[in-house]
Amino acid sequence: MLDRIRIVMVGTTHPGNIGAAARAMNTMGLSDLRLVSPLQFPHVEATARASGSADILASAKVCASLDDALEGATLVVGTSARQRRIPWPCLSPRQLGAVAAERIEQEQIAVLFGREDRGLTNDELQRCHYHVAIPTNPDYAVLNVASAVQLIGYELRLALVGDPEAGEAPRRAGRHCLALPPMEWDAPPADAAELEYLLRHLETLITASGFVDPASPGHVMTRLRRLFLRARPDKVEISTLRGVLTSFARYLPSPESEGGNR
Amino acid sequence: MLDRIRIVMVGTTHPGNIGAAARAMNTMGLSDLRLVSPLQFPHVEATARASGSADILASAKVCASLDDALEGATLVVGTSARQRRIPWPCLSPRQLGAVAAERIEQEQIAVLFGREDRGLTNDELQRCHYHVAIPTNPDYAVLNVASAVQLIGYELRLALVGDPEAGEAPRRAGRHCLALPPMEWDAPPADAAELEYLLRHLETLITASGFVDPASPGHVMTRLRRLFLRARPDKVEISTLRGVLTSFARYLPSPESEGGNR
Repeated sequence: MLDRIRIVMVGTTHPGNIGAAARAMNTMGLSDLRLVSPLQFPHVEATARASGSADILASAKVCASLDDALEGATLVVGTSARQRRIPWPCLSPRQLGAVAAERIEQEQIAVLFGREDRGLTNDELQRCHYHVAIPTNPDYAVLNVASAVQLIGYELRLALVGDPEAGEAPRRAGRHCLALPPMEWDAPPADAAELEYLLRHLETLITASGFVDPASPGHVMTRLRRLFLRARPDKVEISTLRGVLTSFARYLPSPESEGGNR
Repeated sequence: MLDRIRIVMVGTTHPGNIGAAARAMNTMGLSDLRLVSPLQFPHVEATARASGSADILASAKVCASLDDALEGATLVVGTSARQRRIPWPCLSPRQLGAVAAERIEQEQIAVLFGREDRGLTNDELQRCHYHVAIPTNPDYAVLNVASAVQLIGYELRLALVGDPEAGEAPRRAGRHCLALPPMEWDAPPADAAELEYLLRHLETLITASGFVDPASPGHVMTRLRRLFLRARPDKVEISTLRGVLTSFARYLPSPESEGGNR
């Protein structure tokens, strides 16, 4: 389905951005790139920034006009900052994903990305069925064009392919799925350093007690880390646990180093 | 609220990526950038790619260790491809947004981004409460690190600030709870009896070590119970913990009864 979507970069000035856009497309499974009057292409910087996406650059179609680039497209979407003088049907990237998901079987979709310095012209924007505006910091809305391709590609991928591994739907149901409840807290959460000291203290003691052999520790500490990170001890719990460990430490053989008792 | 989120780039090789990440952060309203052992910084390429985001670069904190970068952080999230040998609580970027929206008032959040060529190390990933995996083309999952910052920043912005112009409100619920994702697990959950034996074993030992006085035990066991119940240890974790306790017990004064060693 993603092959029914083309990315059209119009009047791109920096070839590095074309390469970065190709790479961004590739990470999201898009492959149809069209370039309207790029300033420099092909170019060594495009190739460098494309990283492993040379195929997309090699098959990118350089077009002399927007008409060329839109050949066969049925649904044209232009990326733009919001609000021109004459309001246009405008989508968020997520809404664009929803439209694409609904219409993909019936459409050939083109998404237009404009020049680095001034975007798409009014004429170009008026070729579009929709405009799409990426939400940004109002004080700094200067999104790089390849980053815009990345974000739009991401929303299109999520809408059309989904993220099966994140399990929106019941994923591989019935297996050892540990659903944890929301939690109320009565003490502030410990910070990363406090947890780290606890875990190092624990590691020192289980080494001293002989439970782990420092020469081949296996996965013991990994499992214990995962457990305590998951539990997210609060400050009181951390200090309780450290007290417990200190009370054990008095009886254990001295460790060579002071690793845990910071 | 976005100021309670820091971006931590670990071992970044190309200074251009640091600049591009600063710009990506700025477009999404993030400003706290920490760099753990960057190969080259400051650097002219970082400045060039940062475009109008020199302020973020100028105030970026260069840290000698991950510990430094995590100072004061309470919720640590590491970007990673999916599936290590020992599964870890893993979020999609959108789920991360939901967690951030619910927890932002109570947390200082750090999001870690690893090296260009090999990401975060296992040790670094094991410092994280959650891993977050950006959904990508399975045939080309090589997302640029600044692009990853852009996508995560986008989801965090949408979740915390929303996209008011598109009529999409932020998802902030303002509740004091921690939403954890459903998890695929590698071992079945322990049952209540197994957990109970663990807790009694622990109680026996902290009595033997003198940490609690059986005549006036206070709330120590209550807190420890709550912690372990919340963590919901699986069977392997329980057996690891019992092994740890048994290794300590050999050195502790004998308790009067055999309470814990069933």
